[in-house]
Amino acid sequence: MASPFTVSISAQSVAEVEKTFMPSTTEGADLRFHGVVRDTEGDAPITGIDYSCYEAMALPELEKIAREMTESEEAHRVEIHHVTGFVPIGVASIVIRVQTKHSAAAFELCREYLRRIKERVPIWKKIETGL
Amino acid sequence: MASPFTVSISAQSVAEVEKTFMPSTTEGADLRFHGVVRDTEGDAPITGIDYSCYEAMALPELEKIAREMTESEEAHRVEIHHVTGFVPIGVASIVIRVQTKHSAAAFELCREYLRRIKERVPIWKKIETGL
Repeated sequence: MASPFTVSISAQSVAEVEKTFMPSTTEGADLRFHGVVRDTEGDAPITGIDYSCYEAMALPELEKIAREMTESEEAHRVEIHHVTGFVPIGVASIVIRVQTKHSAAAFELCREYLRRIKERVPIWKKIETGL
Repeated sequence: MASPFTVSISAQSVAEVEKTFMPSTTEGADLRFHGVVRDTEGDAPITGIDYSCYEAMALPELEKIAREMTESEEAHRVEIHHVTGFVPIGVASIVIRVQTKHSAAAFELCREYLRRIKERVPIWKKIETGL
């Protein structure tokens, strides 16, 4: 059986990674959360965010979240990608795709993935102001 | 000010419509729900679903949902497209995109759009079995 989760952290863009997403004929719900870099931090304008991580820490933690969720929650597939390096405003730094047979579970699961990732995956943000 | 919602019902595919989605630098959350045609109906295999509607009824109701939600709920943008005609298994028949400044609201709003659309927008499904 194919692994029900695929997670990655790299300089590849979310748009590129989404091109590899395969359709499913067994899941009726395909929910995709994109976390997008906004044009302000606090009230100050920014040009983008530079993301970095210590991959040997961040990737295993992301895998751990995917494993615990796919093992304990109701059946679903999940794909998560976090971008490292500079991400300009208006561009996604993360995508979380959750596929479930029916729709309600997809919303719950996707939100919970986001919550756990924000809380536990050590990815650092350096705000770029272009100044 | 640009309208905060865009809704459509047509034979255009979700993939084509998504190509027109513009990025935002003010919303940090971009959530997209795809409703995908599954390969069974009940327990019987199918080849796809043929969607039809009386557009003079369905489109105004979809617009009404978008108007009432954008007027009464917290600030967000929404784009909704429902496909008419034959949609094969594994392909999306609807996309609901909700953009919000922060992520929590996007999940609530997207789910509520789906609920209201399912309940109120008269789009008929004809199951195709290829037999």
